[in-house]
Amino acid sequence: MAIPAKALYFSFVAHFLAAALAAMVLVWSFHFRGGLAWEATDKNLIFNLHPVLMLIGFIILGGEAIMSYKSLPFNKEVKKTIHLALHAVALVLGIVGIWAAFKNHNESGLANLYSLHSWLGIGVIVLYAIQWIYGFVVFFYPGGTSNIRRESLPWHVLFGSFVYVLAVGNVCLGFLEKLTFLESSGLYKYGSEAFLINFTAIATILYGAFVFLTVLSSHTPPLDDHSYSAI
Amino acid sequence: MAIPAKALYFSFVAHFLAAALAAMVLVWSFHFRGGLAWEATDKNLIFNLHPVLMLIGFIILGGEAIMSYKSLPFNKEVKKTIHLALHAVALVLGIVGIWAAFKNHNESGLANLYSLHSWLGIGVIVLYAIQWIYGFVVFFYPGGTSNIRRESLPWHVLFGSFVYVLAVGNVCLGFLEKLTFLESSGLYKYGSEAFLINFTAIATILYGAFVFLTVLSSHTPPLDDHSYSAI
Repeated sequence: MAIPAKALYFSFVAHFLAAALAAMVLVWSFHFRGGLAWEATDKNLIFNLHPVLMLIGFIILGGEAIMSYKSLPFNKEVKKTIHLALHAVALVLGIVGIWAAFKNHNESGLANLYSLHSWLGIGVIVLYAIQWIYGFVVFFYPGGTSNIRRESLPWHVLFGSFVYVLAVGNVCLGFLEKLTFLESSGLYKYGSEAFLINFTAIATILYGAFVFLTVLSSHTPPLDDHSYSAI
Repeated sequence: MAIPAKALYFSFVAHFLAAALAAMVLVWSFHFRGGLAWEATDKNLIFNLHPVLMLIGFIILGGEAIMSYKSLPFNKEVKKTIHLALHAVALVLGIVGIWAAFKNHNESGLANLYSLHSWLGIGVIVLYAIQWIYGFVVFFYPGGTSNIRRESLPWHVLFGSFVYVLAVGNVCLGFLEKLTFLESSGLYKYGSEAFLINFTAIATILYGAFVFLTVLSSHTPPLDDHSYSAI
């Protein structure tokens, strides 16, 4: 299903939302939650790495990796390398972000892996890694036969889309879970921090929607290869 | 993007998951949460209507409405009527389900509309209603010109998919929110009720995935119009 509109315009909206998202999660961490740290006596500072790394590292870079095929004016091989590299960085930052959550739980004596957010999170990172390895082996190195590539491509796009939707949804579960804990500890339900967290979650959904609009749109940017065009 | 596989097989898996989901949410409501009621001194029984109506009424019927175009062996006009009617029933049951949540909050003295789940829920039901009205007017009665229909169709599918993904995701937010409240009131984090709720949420995601696999698959069932086929 192709959408009769230009990928480039959708990707601009997505980049704008990505910048807004990064700003919002940093304002939340530094202004409202005391900043970030890997080693600290205040274990909340370790936790704060989790939303920052998952949102900026995993969701934003993962979305840019997905869009790179449709929104960049390079040839196919260059775009493939960018796609692969951005997803690799997203995956590594995602793993470090999950590690930060476990580190916070373990050092604070909190239970691990009981909530839907944690279950889906483990599922998403495992499926993302499987998808990356499959993509690397079949489309990059050593590379499958042209038959395998052609038959794999729609499933690669479909499975990748499914995992990315799960990732975006899981960020919303995480924001809701954290905010529910904060509100049950006395944070005002209609206060500025609560609104900031909820608006960040909604902007994350919109970012995901514009990533998919970019992918589904039917026009790709022209390849500027400095050659003459036939008139 | 069409998937080279048969819609019918995916829709069978979706129907099976729908039956399992309905059973799970009813077991939760009746076995663990004391059953359903519209008027009750135990206001929790009013709340229990909310997940049952949203899951069975809104998500399951909404998914069946989406799949009906690809999975039923009828002609286009019959399938269009079924699609429209199932979505109408889903919408009405969804509105009653949301009404039950407000009724429970108001009679229990709980705050309304502060959580991401409530915000997205209002957004989803409004977008769903807009989509239904647009579909009715353009594709059913009085019906747009063939040009408007042709240009509307990809956007109708895309916008409908977006709203349905939001609906499925919002069910997960709801399960997480309710379970977090129950656990903060002492429910065992690794107990059978907690597992049932989390498994219901994951089965809801799988149902949504199979609804989309049905829609994206390239084969539709043959139209059994009792005519002879050319050999």
